[in-house]
Amino acid sequence: MHTDLVAALDIGGTKIAGALVDRDGTLVVRAQRPTPARESGERVMEAVNGVLAELAASPRWGEATAVGIGSAGPVDAAGGTVSPVNVPGWRGFPLVERVGDATGGLPVTLVGDGVAITAAEHWLGAARGHDNALCMVVSTGVGGGLVLGGALHPGPSGNAGHIGHISVDLDGDPCPCGARGCVERIASGPNIARRALENGWRPGPDGDASAVAVAAAARAGDPVAVASFERAAQALAAGIAATATLVDVDIAVIGGGVAGAGDLLFAPLRSALRRYATLSFVQQLTVAPAVMGNDAGLVGAAAAALATRTGAGIPARAH
Amino acid sequence: MHTDLVAALDIGGTKIAGALVDRDGTLVVRAQRPTPARESGERVMEAVNGVLAELAASPRWGEATAVGIGSAGPVDAAGGTVSPVNVPGWRGFPLVERVGDATGGLPVTLVGDGVAITAAEHWLGAARGHDNALCMVVSTGVGGGLVLGGALHPGPSGNAGHIGHISVDLDGDPCPCGARGCVERIASGPNIARRALENGWRPGPDGDASAVAVAAAARAGDPVAVASFERAAQALAAGIAATATLVDVDIAVIGGGVAGAGDLLFAPLRSALRRYATLSFVQQLTVAPAVMGNDAGLVGAAAAALATRTGAGIPARAH
Repeated sequence: MHTDLVAALDIGGTKIAGALVDRDGTLVVRAQRPTPARESGERVMEAVNGVLAELAASPRWGEATAVGIGSAGPVDAAGGTVSPVNVPGWRGFPLVERVGDATGGLPVTLVGDGVAITAAEHWLGAARGHDNALCMVVSTGVGGGLVLGGALHPGPSGNAGHIGHISVDLDGDPCPCGARGCVERIASGPNIARRALENGWRPGPDGDASAVAVAAAARAGDPVAVASFERAAQALAAGIAATATLVDVDIAVIGGGVAGAGDLLFAPLRSALRRYATLSFVQQLTVAPAVMGNDAGLVGAAAAALATRTGAGIPARAH
Repeated sequence: MHTDLVAALDIGGTKIAGALVDRDGTLVVRAQRPTPARESGERVMEAVNGVLAELAASPRWGEATAVGIGSAGPVDAAGGTVSPVNVPGWRGFPLVERVGDATGGLPVTLVGDGVAITAAEHWLGAARGHDNALCMVVSTGVGGGLVLGGALHPGPSGNAGHIGHISVDLDGDPCPCGARGCVERIASGPNIARRALENGWRPGPDGDASAVAVAAAARAGDPVAVASFERAAQALAAGIAATATLVDVDIAVIGGGVAGAGDLLFAPLRSALRRYATLSFVQQLTVAPAVMGNDAGLVGAAAAALATRTGAGIPARAH
């Protein structure tokens, strides 16, 4: 019976969340600050320190035996640094060392945010019991992570599973990453909205031109809106099928705002998956909605830290 | 010091090769039969038994402690069966059980042929020393395998790394597998030749319309032939970049007849890789020609068996 806690940090371009997480995945103490994303690297670190100080003020802080960090990427787990696209003040920022210093030398595990949500879904969510799984977030961007052979697979860099930036359309539209036809360039929320607008869809009186509004239009029968979701689903299917063909996962768990569109996304996705996942060993591949919600990043950061410490995959398997 | 041997089988649509392989990867005894690919499953098994009988006639057979099989795919490692596309008599054929019976109950490890060549290149070839690698064969088809975290990664089915059938062109040409725009549909030898012919290249007086002839024409400056190799290189680059982005490999080793074209393939491939492998953690990705040659399948089948027995990745790491 383990009674220790893990301090978890979930670092994104909008907020820095922290928690003390117990061995059941329960968040027993929480703290949060906005990310001063346009300010200097030191100012961003001050916000992290503020979150950690708030956690350290808890009477249970003394039970914390490790820190897990899930950060917007890319990260460099081997070097202990982060360079989040949306936090320009942090380029090669030595986050692991700084958090170690701030917590009196606790061991620190760093993974990308896609890897963190994967750890959460595998520990307690929709990928539980699956030894080989892809978990994704389809939202403003498209991220992901992998479970292979029963264990979280962050890869040496901590970024493995970065499905948003694999090309499924090698002659396709340029992606901000520099490549063409990336899954994110076709399937993210902003790109679903962009494509609908380019093809003639117009927002209603409230002026909402987001993917949420496109989803509402699609539900009301607008064919351009429906087609934009279908195209996103096709790109996701090609990317998921590629992943399964490469590493033999049997489930893809999908969360994030775009997944919130429900059957509008999942029905054409399942249909397209039949067309792209053709080899015998991937034909049983299934997709499922994520279940861990907004706390996935924190729960997953804790899970990643526990997995690293035990060397035995997700904590549920180490009990 | 280990002195035992492994019996290795390399099963393809043309030939069934066998060997006794020592712990240094040396083939100490060899045997080979043509594959009666159009005959019944039992006739094909008779050829396998013939190869095994020839090995068993060696005075060193008694030292064999395991059997490794690399087979044309798809395979089902969990079920112990094979269904090679080019051997229609074998559909769900229980090869592991049959080879176990034929060898007096030796433990049998089954992997796909792409996984086998990967095991060989990692053990003794161009991927040696790389803990995370993709190895490929680009020939009549396109196959591959993965090394992750220092160990061969066959996946639960034994087919992981099947890069030939990931789609890099989701609206592209139909592939015989049922999907569209697969790497193999663009980059295999027959497709390099097909594309050159479709775009106006014509074979010389000898009538040779193979990728080898296209390569000769490209070296002589034929722009259509050059373009066909460049397109193959682009598809390979997109597929390799996708693999690195998903599982964080730092090298792609490429063998097979098309790789024999040398710089005609590798120069545009390296150039295209810069365009598709854009994220920070994959920018150091390199490509290298395979070095293990025709024995890669046998050496790799032995390596896979040793890796399974020691549970410690490739045998070189277990010494």
